[in-house]
Amino acid sequence: MISIVLLGTGNVAKHLFNAFLGVNEINVLQVIGRNEGHLAHFKDKVPTGTDFSQIADADIYIMAVSDDAIAQVATYLKEKKGLVVHTSGSVPIKTLKGLYNTGVFYPLQTFSEGKTIDFKNVPICLEAEYKGDLDKLKKLAGLIALEVHEITSDQRKSLHLAAVFVNNFTNYLFTVGHDICTEHNMPFSMLSPLIKETVNKLDYLDPFDAQTGPAKRNDVKTMESHLNQLKNKNYQDIYSLLSKLIGERYGQKL
Amino acid sequence: MISIVLLGTGNVAKHLFNAFLGVNEINVLQVIGRNEGHLAHFKDKVPTGTDFSQIADADIYIMAVSDDAIAQVATYLKEKKGLVVHTSGSVPIKTLKGLYNTGVFYPLQTFSEGKTIDFKNVPICLEAEYKGDLDKLKKLAGLIALEVHEITSDQRKSLHLAAVFVNNFTNYLFTVGHDICTEHNMPFSMLSPLIKETVNKLDYLDPFDAQTGPAKRNDVKTMESHLNQLKNKNYQDIYSLLSKLIGERYGQKL
Repeated sequence: MISIVLLGTGNVAKHLFNAFLGVNEINVLQVIGRNEGHLAHFKDKVPTGTDFSQIADADIYIMAVSDDAIAQVATYLKEKKGLVVHTSGSVPIKTLKGLYNTGVFYPLQTFSEGKTIDFKNVPICLEAEYKGDLDKLKKLAGLIALEVHEITSDQRKSLHLAAVFVNNFTNYLFTVGHDICTEHNMPFSMLSPLIKETVNKLDYLDPFDAQTGPAKRNDVKTMESHLNQLKNKNYQDIYSLLSKLIGERYGQKL
Repeated sequence: MISIVLLGTGNVAKHLFNAFLGVNEINVLQVIGRNEGHLAHFKDKVPTGTDFSQIADADIYIMAVSDDAIAQVATYLKEKKGLVVHTSGSVPIKTLKGLYNTGVFYPLQTFSEGKTIDFKNVPICLEAEYKGDLDKLKKLAGLIALEVHEITSDQRKSLHLAAVFVNNFTNYLFTVGHDICTEHNMPFSMLSPLIKETVNKLDYLDPFDAQTGPAKRNDVKTMESHLNQLKNKNYQDIYSLLSKLIGERYGQKL
């Protein structure tokens, strides 16, 4: 049995908590968070509290708080003998220096309010100062996820950066597509099969090989026509920049 | 029974042909293409030819050729009494003016060599000069696809533009993610669950509401750190532009 105290009440904390609840070998002792209202999600299933000086003794303390809050929350764990981990993509493990045993438990996924995640498919990226702690984290991660990776702080930072490109920026391009559809009285859902296939292809092809479109084949006429269609200056800027870079990547001179 | 002549041998022609083959009510009479080698895919299942002056008489002629070739291939169909359609996202129906009956049969999907597509999930966008021809196209489309839309040439042009953003540009961002992973000795497949969830979310949320990340929450520290990590000037340009536009969209001043 692994005993856990969860610090934080945001999306990552909620999704982790839900995943832990379904596992017999994991016992969540307590959830602590500043905001009384945000504790509502946990209250009927586990003891909760807003006082960080009243943290129970556990095997593992998981800080699922914002990057800026990690150092401060860590000060409440200075006397604890258990393993203290954070869940951040970009904060190095050395931020936890001074604590007894430290590590990182980073689930590489986008968590939204009200959208359930099957943790089985979430890669969990681990780091720990000591081999024994790494083994503990591997055991914990293995109880909820199928894919567990040991990576360094530097690798995690790069992964987080890559995630901005493939998730945040990609989602913004979907917003642009949504805008164009709405402006021309078509439902965004018409693009849904195309978007899904764009991603499904990645199971068969590297994205470099999957690239198609006017920029790749240097179809100047179509690109000019597209730029003329775009009335939004910002969208013209995106179109020009990405077309230029795709063209260069595939040996075109635009 | 609807008889079809298919003109063209590229990915769209191949995928359409495969979809038509499985339907009793559709009879593909002939496939015509300039390139003898490219006809190999069709040869053992249907009569083929490279001579555009030898096109058989059919109910519907489908030109699945590149945008630039449409007008020229159309000249071979001037004497035909059947319905002539092209499959392009960006060529207006009026390009076919002068032919007997004209229309558009645009499957909104990305087709790659060697990757099968289930046409059931491909939205087919139709346009025709005459109501009777539109009905014919609806019948044909309905035999292979579940989703059939009637849209104008202008709408189709916009849809094609939106497709560049959600498919071509998105795929390029995946290439950037791939580069970052490779540079730091991590498999791109680690990002796969995140990419899939980014898209699955769209079944529940508009992309505007699904947006997350440092640019949306004006997390200047993380954005500066990301820009410092990116050694590739082009990737810095993408990061800066998209972060600025996301920030503006969500009311942040960067």
